[in-house]
Amino acid sequence: MTKAGLRSKDLLGIEPLDPSEIELILDTAESMAEIGKREIKKVPALRGRMVVNLFFEASTRTRFSFETAEKWLSADTLNFAAKGTSVEKGESLLDTAKNLEAMSPDFLVIRHSSPGVPHFLASRLKTRVINAGDGAHEHPTQALLDAMTIRQRKGKFDGLKVAIVGDIAHSRVVRSNIWCLTKLNAKVTLCAPPTLMPVDIESMGVGVTSDFEEALDGADVVMMLRVQIERGGKMAFPSSREYFARYGLTRERLRLARPDAIVMHPGPMNRGVEISSEIADDADRSVILSQVANGVAVRMAILYLLAGGSPQAWQEKA
Amino acid sequence: MTKAGLRSKDLLGIEPLDPSEIELILDTAESMAEIGKREIKKVPALRGRMVVNLFFEASTRTRFSFETAEKWLSADTLNFAAKGTSVEKGESLLDTAKNLEAMSPDFLVIRHSSPGVPHFLASRLKTRVINAGDGAHEHPTQALLDAMTIRQRKGKFDGLKVAIVGDIAHSRVVRSNIWCLTKLNAKVTLCAPPTLMPVDIESMGVGVTSDFEEALDGADVVMMLRVQIERGGKMAFPSSREYFARYGLTRERLRLARPDAIVMHPGPMNRGVEISSEIADDADRSVILSQVANGVAVRMAILYLLAGGSPQAWQEKA
Amino acid sequence: MTKAGLRSKDLLGIEPLDPSEIELILDTAESMAEIGKREIKKVPALRGRMVVNLFFEASTRTRFSFETAEKWLSADTLNFAAKGTSVEKGESLLDTAKNLEAMSPDFLVIRHSSPGVPHFLASRLKTRVINAGDGAHEHPTQALLDAMTIRQRKGKFDGLKVAIVGDIAHSRVVRSNIWCLTKLNAKVTLCAPPTLMPVDIESMGVGVTSDFEEALDGADVVMMLRVQIERGGKMAFPSSREYFARYGLTRERLRLARPDAIVMHPGPMNRGVEISSEIADDADRSVILSQVANGVAVRMAILYLLAGGSPQAWQEKA
Repeated sequence: MTKAGLRSKDLLGIEPLDPSEIELILDTAESMAEIGKREIKKVPALRGRMVVNLFFEASTRTRFSFETAEKWLSADTLNFAAKGTSVEKGESLLDTAKNLEAMSPDFLVIRHSSPGVPHFLASRLKTRVINAGDGAHEHPTQALLDAMTIRQRKGKFDGLKVAIVGDIAHSRVVRSNIWCLTKLNAKVTLCAPPTLMPVDIESMGVGVTSDFEEALDGADVVMMLRVQIERGGKMAFPSSREYFARYGLTRERLRLARPDAIVMHPGPMNRGVEISSEIADDADRSVILSQVANGVAVRMAILYLLAGGSPQAWQEKA
Repeated sequence: MTKAGLRSKDLLGIEPLDPSEIELILDTAESMAEIGKREIKKVPALRGRMVVNLFFEASTRTRFSFETAEKWLSADTLNFAAKGTSVEKGESLLDTAKNLEAMSPDFLVIRHSSPGVPHFLASRLKTRVINAGDGAHEHPTQALLDAMTIRQRKGKFDGLKVAIVGDIAHSRVVRSNIWCLTKLNAKVTLCAPPTLMPVDIESMGVGVTSDFEEALDGADVVMMLRVQIERGGKMAFPSSREYFARYGLTRERLRLARPDAIVMHPGPMNRGVEISSEIADDADRSVILSQVANGVAVRMAILYLLAGGSPQAWQEKA
Repeated sequence: MTKAGLRSKDLLGIEPLDPSEIELILDTAESMAEIGKREIKKVPALRGRMVVNLFFEASTRTRFSFETAEKWLSADTLNFAAKGTSVEKGESLLDTAKNLEAMSPDFLVIRHSSPGVPHFLASRLKTRVINAGDGAHEHPTQALLDAMTIRQRKGKFDGLKVAIVGDIAHSRVVRSNIWCLTKLNAKVTLCAPPTLMPVDIESMGVGVTSDFEEALDGADVVMMLRVQIERGGKMAFPSSREYFARYGLTRERLRLARPDAIVMHPGPMNRGVEISSEIADDADRSVILSQVANGVAVRMAILYLLAGGSPQAWQEKA
């Protein structure tokens, strides 16, 4: 049985993917994860391809993860940060992107604070566009690495109970995770203080509660979200201490979940705010560093598949 | 017939080049442009050579273009931005450059706000120096990519009427373009508001006018310059709106030029200030994105020729 | 006779090294220095290895030197500067480092303003850590390149008189140099104004004086330190002019040293403050640019040896 590739030239979000595309990415990523364990972490799959990493917002882990993926695939990389560029000179984003495109890059990886920017560019450029986070809209590679991590530990998605807890309103990742997990038939419950829960989010097919204990009850997966202090999310409750008291994940609270429940966090963590250090560092429960490791594999898979690679062929070329 | 290489170890400006050197660069660039259309955009011509990109002023397109050229040629690159370096600690520019040179790079690509900085360094260093823009003095790679673009569309320079319009006084590119086009026997007319026209520029062998219509009359090439708002050029006229009314390129005005006239702009554009969006995006007339694409090819050619490569040999090595 | 490799996975300082390890590094660096003279400066020794350059403080020469070394060894590199990263979002340094480690880099090269940061990380990570300067504590690669430079010019360390002069208190390099030179049996004298001399530094086995003439008397090596204006060192004396009058190295003062004494400086220099331009540029006495060149070789040697390479084998792989 041969699987088809991805239908779009771009990866803009999880919403447009169908479940078989998600599985194709996860399968390819799983096979590529092995490269990270080699002494020589390099395959020639994207040699001579150029990837422009266009980050209009600061990011350590996402940029490094993409850049690592690109280098393991032998691609060339150009890094662009918003400061110190012609963006400051008042050029429109589309002109900047058209200019970059004229230099024949193969991919634009774009992070931007405004929802829809990657989609806007993708529809106007022939270059493949990968959304590395557009405001609080989608962050598809994060959702895919989360799904890969869940699959590694749970072996399935069907009927799995996933609690996503924290600053739902401002999260960069939660919409992508909801699309991804519901497409794969997991049961998702969102939990946040009422001030941090978007109106009408139930319409995405998820449960909603402001009661942390209720959300944890019987969960297979507990995904804690960063409190987005820098986006003003902090104003929604009086103090970090009070947030931790109501919504911080502790060992005691985790007992409400299933005994084999795993704990996830997209990082960067606020220890003692949304998660206790004890849980964050618990090697049996926390899969936080596995998420990071899987991020490289997922991004390799996406770059490789969008470039037209067939799922297993990279191994023959290596 | 074999052509000689470039006479200097450096590319500091167009002024010191003779016409056969310009043609050598354009011919080599033309042959290299084909690399950008390949799936694997990489030739081993400069493998194991190090290029230091030393940008003391912000730039997106010039730095990316050089870096793309370097990577297509398989060179290694180091990027240096003025912020966060020992320049801040008060070290002299020459000491910084001597220190870099001690690490055995093959090229320094330098952009600096002060005219003459690349020349100063080139005369004191054994390393090859490429001027990526020294204040309002020279920006030779821009002039060469402009010439390459004109030659592609017009097939010749002899007798060609070129109008260069806008903020002549503060332009980074106009002197290099005047040198280049007059050496190749084109007829250049400069047009600017009197406050933005340098005194005595006629001595460079160009026509001068403040009347836009006069400059456009019968032109084969209309090169619009960015209004250098960030250099205070804006003070020379009351508003952007007024500038556009007097010196903005519109479809109506373009009718004064030859019917097959092409429109150029070195970017970044101020749409609605020096050029209308309609003209900027007119696929028949605007060659603005071709300029960007040709920039990579020209920079490859320069790096390759300065490294001692013979014009056609890179193809054999590929 | 086969030499053993380095005992530690990390290079955190000179203090933990024994003399045979120092000599192993110098011997390996000496053999690698030759690569910098080749046209193609690249050996495949670290192909497919990833080095993360984690600079929490600005640096030109150290970062470029490491990056050059990494590229000559064919390693991949990721650059991290403190600004614009999740450090700003309040993530702990250890969490940042653990996240980077999860992406499977082979090396972290770290510069930080706080003493002990590289040691803290090295003890908690499996990744190899190289200290590129931790505050005023250690800067081992600088001491090793200094030792390499001294050995090239003097052929030995035993009994060699080395004067280290300047802002001892705030120097990033002086402790590493004291460890290195005393382990190799050189005789070290420190000289500084009393306000810039740390208490009890004699306990490191060095002579101490505030009299510049006394320190210079009979010296084989004169190592001038940068006056760390940016760390407040300037407050210790009334003016740069006065500092130069008392502690600036001039030709006249250098006559007090041995006739074949060499002059060193870790850079960046303040010409006319701690050293006269005449001496800095004296090709017979100043070895300042040799230090820079040797820096690349030393860093290649360290990367190569920590990766488990045997001292001569890289040449066979080349």
